[in-house]
Amino acid sequence: MKKRLGEVLEKVYSRRLSPEKALECLTDYPYQDLGFAKVDHHRELLKGYPEIVYGLGKTPAQIIGIAREIIKKGSNLLVTRVEPEVQAKIKGRLKGTTYNAVARTVTLCQKPAPAGRGKIVVISAGTSDMPVAEEAAVTAEILGNDVVRIYDVGVAGLHRLLHQYDRIREARVVISVAGMEGALPSVVAGLVRVPVIAVPTSIGYGASFKGLAALLAMLNSCPGGVGVVNIDNGFGAAYLASLINHL
Amino acid sequence: MKKRLGEVLEKVYSRRLSPEKALECLTDYPYQDLGFAKVDHHRELLKGYPEIVYGLGKTPAQIIGIAREIIKKGSNLLVTRVEPEVQAKIKGRLKGTTYNAVARTVTLCQKPAPAGRGKIVVISAGTSDMPVAEEAAVTAEILGNDVVRIYDVGVAGLHRLLHQYDRIREARVVISVAGMEGALPSVVAGLVRVPVIAVPTSIGYGASFKGLAALLAMLNSCPGGVGVVNIDNGFGAAYLASLINHL
Amino acid sequence: MKKRLGEVLEKVYSRRLSPEKALECLTDYPYQDLGFAKVDHHRELLKGYPEIVYGLGKTPAQIIGIAREIIKKGSNLLVTRVEPEVQAKIKGRLKGTTYNAVARTVTLCQKPAPAGRGKIVVISAGTSDMPVAEEAAVTAEILGNDVVRIYDVGVAGLHRLLHQYDRIREARVVISVAGMEGALPSVVAGLVRVPVIAVPTSIGYGASFKGLAALLAMLNSCPGGVGVVNIDNGFGAAYLASLINHL
Amino acid sequence: MKKRLGEVLEKVYSRRLSPEKALECLTDYPYQDLGFAKVDHHRELLKGYPEIVYGLGKTPAQIIGIAREIIKKGSNLLVTRVEPEVQAKIKGRLKGTTYNAVARTVTLCQKPAPAGRGKIVVISAGTSDMPVAEEAAVTAEILGNDVVRIYDVGVAGLHRLLHQYDRIREARVVISVAGMEGALPSVVAGLVRVPVIAVPTSIGYGASFKGLAALLAMLNSCPGGVGVVNIDNGFGAAYLASLINHL
Amino acid sequence: MKKRLGEVLEKVYSRRLSPEKALECLTDYPYQDLGFAKVDHHRELLKGYPEIVYGLGKTPAQIIGIAREIIKKGSNLLVTRVEPEVQAKIKGRLKGTTYNAVARTVTLCQKPAPAGRGKIVVISAGTSDMPVAEEAAVTAEILGNDVVRIYDVGVAGLHRLLHQYDRIREARVVISVAGMEGALPSVVAGLVRVPVIAVPTSIGYGASFKGLAALLAMLNSCPGGVGVVNIDNGFGAAYLASLINHL
Amino acid sequence: MKKRLGEVLEKVYSRRLSPEKALECLTDYPYQDLGFAKVDHHRELLKGYPEIVYGLGKTPAQIIGIAREIIKKGSNLLVTRVEPEVQAKIKGRLKGTTYNAVARTVTLCQKPAPAGRGKIVVISAGTSDMPVAEEAAVTAEILGNDVVRIYDVGVAGLHRLLHQYDRIREARVVISVAGMEGALPSVVAGLVRVPVIAVPTSIGYGASFKGLAALLAMLNSCPGGVGVVNIDNGFGAAYLASLINHL
Amino acid sequence: MKKRLGEVLEKVYSRRLSPEKALECLTDYPYQDLGFAKVDHHRELLKGYPEIVYGLGKTPAQIIGIAREIIKKGSNLLVTRVEPEVQAKIKGRLKGTTYNAVARTVTLCQKPAPAGRGKIVVISAGTSDMPVAEEAAVTAEILGNDVVRIYDVGVAGLHRLLHQYDRIREARVVISVAGMEGALPSVVAGLVRVPVIAVPTSIGYGASFKGLAALLAMLNSCPGGVGVVNIDNGFGAAYLASLINHL
Amino acid sequence: MKKRLGEVLEKVYSRRLSPEKALECLTDYPYQDLGFAKVDHHRELLKGYPEIVYGLGKTPAQIIGIAREIIKKGSNLLVTRVEPEVQAKIKGRLKGTTYNAVARTVTLCQKPAPAGRGKIVVISAGTSDMPVAEEAAVTAEILGNDVVRIYDVGVAGLHRLLHQYDRIREARVVISVAGMEGALPSVVAGLVRVPVIAVPTSIGYGASFKGLAALLAMLNSCPGGVGVVNIDNGFGAAYLASLINHL
Repeated sequence: MKKRLGEVLEKVYSRRLSPEKALECLTDYPYQDLGFAKVDHHRELLKGYPEIVYGLGKTPAQIIGIAREIIKKGSNLLVTRVEPEVQAKIKGRLKGTTYNAVARTVTLCQKPAPAGRGKIVVISAGTSDMPVAEEAAVTAEILGNDVVRIYDVGVAGLHRLLHQYDRIREARVVISVAGMEGALPSVVAGLVRVPVIAVPTSIGYGASFKGLAALLAMLNSCPGGVGVVNIDNGFGAAYLASLINHL
Repeated sequence: MKKRLGEVLEKVYSRRLSPEKALECLTDYPYQDLGFAKVDHHRELLKGYPEIVYGLGKTPAQIIGIAREIIKKGSNLLVTRVEPEVQAKIKGRLKGTTYNAVARTVTLCQKPAPAGRGKIVVISAGTSDMPVAEEAAVTAEILGNDVVRIYDVGVAGLHRLLHQYDRIREARVVISVAGMEGALPSVVAGLVRVPVIAVPTSIGYGASFKGLAALLAMLNSCPGGVGVVNIDNGFGAAYLASLINHL
Repeated sequence: MKKRLGEVLEKVYSRRLSPEKALECLTDYPYQDLGFAKVDHHRELLKGYPEIVYGLGKTPAQIIGIAREIIKKGSNLLVTRVEPEVQAKIKGRLKGTTYNAVARTVTLCQKPAPAGRGKIVVISAGTSDMPVAEEAAVTAEILGNDVVRIYDVGVAGLHRLLHQYDRIREARVVISVAGMEGALPSVVAGLVRVPVIAVPTSIGYGASFKGLAALLAMLNSCPGGVGVVNIDNGFGAAYLASLINHL
Repeated sequence: MKKRLGEVLEKVYSRRLSPEKALECLTDYPYQDLGFAKVDHHRELLKGYPEIVYGLGKTPAQIIGIAREIIKKGSNLLVTRVEPEVQAKIKGRLKGTTYNAVARTVTLCQKPAPAGRGKIVVISAGTSDMPVAEEAAVTAEILGNDVVRIYDVGVAGLHRLLHQYDRIREARVVISVAGMEGALPSVVAGLVRVPVIAVPTSIGYGASFKGLAALLAMLNSCPGGVGVVNIDNGFGAAYLASLINHL
Repeated sequence: MKKRLGEVLEKVYSRRLSPEKALECLTDYPYQDLGFAKVDHHRELLKGYPEIVYGLGKTPAQIIGIAREIIKKGSNLLVTRVEPEVQAKIKGRLKGTTYNAVARTVTLCQKPAPAGRGKIVVISAGTSDMPVAEEAAVTAEILGNDVVRIYDVGVAGLHRLLHQYDRIREARVVISVAGMEGALPSVVAGLVRVPVIAVPTSIGYGASFKGLAALLAMLNSCPGGVGVVNIDNGFGAAYLASLINHL
Repeated sequence: MKKRLGEVLEKVYSRRLSPEKALECLTDYPYQDLGFAKVDHHRELLKGYPEIVYGLGKTPAQIIGIAREIIKKGSNLLVTRVEPEVQAKIKGRLKGTTYNAVARTVTLCQKPAPAGRGKIVVISAGTSDMPVAEEAAVTAEILGNDVVRIYDVGVAGLHRLLHQYDRIREARVVISVAGMEGALPSVVAGLVRVPVIAVPTSIGYGASFKGLAALLAMLNSCPGGVGVVNIDNGFGAAYLASLINHL
Repeated sequence: MKKRLGEVLEKVYSRRLSPEKALECLTDYPYQDLGFAKVDHHRELLKGYPEIVYGLGKTPAQIIGIAREIIKKGSNLLVTRVEPEVQAKIKGRLKGTTYNAVARTVTLCQKPAPAGRGKIVVISAGTSDMPVAEEAAVTAEILGNDVVRIYDVGVAGLHRLLHQYDRIREARVVISVAGMEGALPSVVAGLVRVPVIAVPTSIGYGASFKGLAALLAMLNSCPGGVGVVNIDNGFGAAYLASLINHL
Repeated sequence: MKKRLGEVLEKVYSRRLSPEKALECLTDYPYQDLGFAKVDHHRELLKGYPEIVYGLGKTPAQIIGIAREIIKKGSNLLVTRVEPEVQAKIKGRLKGTTYNAVARTVTLCQKPAPAGRGKIVVISAGTSDMPVAEEAAVTAEILGNDVVRIYDVGVAGLHRLLHQYDRIREARVVISVAGMEGALPSVVAGLVRVPVIAVPTSIGYGASFKGLAALLAMLNSCPGGVGVVNIDNGFGAAYLASLINHL
């Protein structure tokens, strides 16, 4: 479209086309992309400095291929959901990258992202929730945020959570990760005056219905200030938290 | 935007602006509406000649107000989901309109819509499904289609359905309406070689779960050629069928 | 059957029937009720001293009729789910009874039930949960228990809950009532070493799905020691708690 | 208990115990099993002559062990849900037995079961439904019934079903098996005047939700005379059909 | 079609048409209704002698109109789901009919239906289940069956159920009606060797999900011989039971 | 039946049977198949020129066997859902066939199908939706349609979709494929005036519930003109689209 | 607890208690409330300056009573979910308050809340979504935010949404409200680089399942940066958005 | 916090700080952990004497590592959900431990837990429910309870259950385990006057929906006195039962 617009403008300038005719002709194209490439570029700049690869379902070869291109461009790299057996085949073939075995992420930071304004505190309920929490933490870090990790402080042992009260209150944004009954975000949102991003996890069995119980609990969170993302979506929670922290 | 574009073109024409500068300046506005009013107009012309009012949840006064404006413009009118108690209050206050007590529609055809190319056959399973079927039929008619109604031919009495075999085969598009087990569209789709639009109804009780059973059945329809719309969405089925019939 | 057994025994005693024949003839009646009346009587004595009437769906006349019979027998009376409009018509016609407008119960205690061994603490999350909590409390009381009420201590305001720490720890059994995210029983079970009976309520809207969210949360309760009853089943929770408290 | 009753009767006969005392003592045992062994034996005789082994989840060794005991007793044998890889290890080790690879059953008929009174017609919708249909057919046969198989007559091709009209009408009981939209039982029940046992299968994908769509459809079956069993429960359908056919 | 066939046959007889041509021409009409009226008549004769009117959603005037036509024809009449407020307006206007306030049925038996071969025993769990149980009983009776009612024998009080053991065993078919946990059909099916038709009711609250809990329980019934119908479908259960009882 | 009809006609022709008697005798056979074989043949001709094999759950040997028969008959072949590991074993054994690794289809076009009248545009949201989109595209092509593929234009990047505005508007029918939030068909239906067939995919995790989220979104599509097929049913969408495109 | 602590400190100061003993004695009180009143006060100050009353289920008298107390304290007042019939009885009895008939809110701002840092843009899809959108807008305003309303810009008419592109981009936080297919937040999140709070509404029918379809769609939102709140929770969305906007 | 409190007390004692100032300073820390370590210790002592390891998802190496630490401390050990293939690798490497192949537990009792006051009776419905029942039994034993096992007494064979009537009545607490229709707890709760802990299992197929059917049935249990835990949660049931039995 840009090309077409250029041609029209040329014709107008050279007076082969009247402004009226040009207008008519141009407005004939609803929903056209006048400069969309530019928009695209904008979004790339703004939304998430690293380039993100969702690793699940991709072969090691595909991941290596995509990652190398990103690295070559000089971008930061974040590959999520890289299972250990996939990592085993990637290992050593993506120079400089780091594998976080808990988060199942492969990262490479070539140029630090702009720093967020405060701390993002990632709080998780149980040890089994750690992969999701750590995916959130790693993502938040590569997006330029200062991250505080507070893990294994589920509501069953309130004292452990309250022990961390001072650290929690340092947060500009909280990411709260929990499976099973998903009660942690409700409790945390009652303790702080900052946004809480709630991440249900699929941890549990039986009536957890793969995270549905935790998801519903979080959507019904009694104290205000809780926004919910999809089950196991540590990445998405960090992305949203980072957006907030960079405001 | 159109105004802005006009100004820019004027400046180019008067050579107060180079084409390059103009291009740069114009492409700076992603997602702009270059002629959207026009597009809007297009859609109005194309998509559904009558103007549609969804009556449910509107007061008689609101319906009368909106309907009168539409009528004044000379448009065709279709108000759906006008319950009898609402109609009792509208009655006599919208001159020339027709109330279909089964379909619960108020209509006024001021200028016939362009004719569809073939017949739309509306087939319904039980007498309780008639309101939805009739909403579909009335909608299809005001959209310019020749409509054949075949009601009360559920699969429990196959002979009644097969009796209508010849009439069914006249269809260019079939709309098949059924509640409860929702089997009719599957059977009908096996009898014809034209598209079948399936409409589940909320008729039933218990394990019908307000139309969910029929909806799922239709989505799993074994013979090909079936497209499904929302539960009780007679209007939507007719709209889609009419689009097809006007191709 | 008892009669039949008596007759057979008489015949054996009078030697009109041999033991072998008698055995053969008696064992021919599987699942017979040899003394079932007695069993029935046992159960009546043991299971819930008051007689319970589930008021929902009963007319005022029916409730009055049933209640009067129970009162005449000298039993304690508990009518649950008596909505205010029903109570308006019952009022004054059941002498000596008490109406609890929050619990929606009608009670009459003619002879105190045997005392439970400790305290039952009823803890509820929000003010909207009070009808269910109070139904539990009233039921537990008429079943002979010493009841402590701690209401409006939802997890959103942890300090309010912790303020009550000492009172909570006095419990021999806890009944924890919560709607919405249903997190309270999990938090409470982490604070005590006694059984926690969790009651989800239908309080909430949208994704609470009429108590389903709270129910699932409670079934997934992370700390041990939580048993769950049906949504809004304050009566059932108190019945179970009372059984435990009378052990 | 039988022993105890015998002893009591002996004591009464020898006049060491009065009938009154005996009655008192015997009726003191509510829910006792006066002859339950006999009852048990009754049920064995009556309910399904073959002994049934549910093969799923059992090791080949377990199946062989159980089956041999049954065979040794002279009973008929029916093992259901024997997957091919299990059968591969059983093969040749259970003399005289037959493996039906479609039904995934292992059977041995040592003494024919009493014959049912009419024919059981097993009708299935698609070829993928055949394992369930065949499990029903094999079960019905070993239970003593004359079985007619009519497969692959789904409602998408009504003519194929109607071709079989005469054979269907021979049925004393119909078993109708279908996955996906589960429409077959509704259509069949409209064609016959005998009981139709409907078996939903888990055949399908997406919105079939592993047979839920078919199950709901069948429960909502419009024509009367349809009883539904669990998803994929070919065995259960045949068992019920056989009960009916032996009445 | 019949007319057309007649014409063709006439032409063949008068040798204006060769058999070959006639065959070709006739077979050109797939799915034609060669005698369908007759079939229809067959079904009317066979399937349910009374004519059934589903009362729910019909106005008193509509019910009266339909019922009078049926009565005039000399048929037996069964109107189901006639709520008391509707009955109040029908009362006295349908001579000779009987209103069963529990079953919510209006019936008139003008000519007794052919008698079933044995007894249909209708067993229900709680007093709240009685409307559904009674609808089944009334339906079974007008269909010509000898009905035994055994109500309020839920599994919570097993002794009450077992007291009725002898009466239950008289059944040729059992209809077992239960809401809440829906356990009764499983227990009953373990006690008898005849078909059990299970009817879940919508009785209950919270996690009963309007009968879903009972429905699922019945579909998973452990003992064989259970066929399930839709929630609250007392009529359907009786229809199926009657079909079986007339075999 | 055809045979029987032939015989009857012969008898009429030879005057061994009067037309009246013949009529009576013929109409005695309700639901008989007067020429159904012919009907079947009709359907074969009309519905989907290629023969379709659903590959999932079939062994390589089965697929090869069925495919060879189809090829031998001279028909076009379409095998869907051929996973790579199955294809590895089929490869080279079905001469002339093409394997599309994205669509997981095996095809052979021996005689071009009749051409559709316009273009079918297949639009998919994400790269993960491509297998379903491509199954639709391949199916539409072998059914004789001119197919335009527009992939990876999800609503998250509206500019990419709008870039394709002109190509989208060329469609006579649109197939819109999307997983996760399933928003694409709604947006697309707002841009065109032709039927949109919406295909939800099982792409996503957590609260996508294997495509349920996308399915519900599509059924609730706000703009008119959308018909929905089952989750992942690329084939079904193409079949319906082709029916429409051949009208 | 504070009192107790004071006493202990006094004793230590007067050296009647050693620090060691004091420590021992104090630490004996787990979960004690050392200053919780203070904390409570903190929360009041920080979390939502106005006091909020959830109007649904409260009588006019209750609302008036609570509201007057709040007003007397000099606090700002926000009553949500005040249905017109309730407002009719409140009207004129709460001086100075404003009723917003669309939002169904009663408000009184006595002292302006601290101003948020940017604009909160509230975007809604359809006119039926306006009550929820307006509840969000009114809430955000009384919480001190500058609110921009952009209503009726659903994805079915993309041009209307894009027309508002510039206004949308002014947002520091976006609240996106939609029922039915719930696609709006996904599209909006693709257009901006700020947090998007998504609010599903219960608008729709049939397969919208009272907002479930929209809720699931939003949780699966493809572009990053979307946090979801409960169905119809306009208040909650505004509360979260305000927290973010005051960071 | 303890340290901080110590320091403050020291300063008060040495009169470097007035009690007033100290109070002010200390109360400035809401939610602080004054002695939480101690609390933690309390809980350890009280809640479950053995240390519990949830084996599922842990590698053999992880289990061995954790178990050895627990054993070294002298604690009792309970590892749950140790699948046979994991046990194969653990075997012989944890001296003195016992593997229960049915319960899939590894246990070591180094010091007997305090004895419960009565018997816990574990009743299960089918042989397939035994793993869950046995997990409950093993857990209850290591928690110090006298356990009675009554397995394979499902409601389909009531006589088997009633045979055990005397043993059941010895219970102080009953744990009732059942899959499929989940009817056993309802029947058992009608036979005893002690608390019944109901454990649904995921045993079943089709409409059991992995234990959902049994779960719902148990939540709707008609007789009072039933508390429900999560699907397959034998451990949790035993933990709750033990709490009750130690009261």
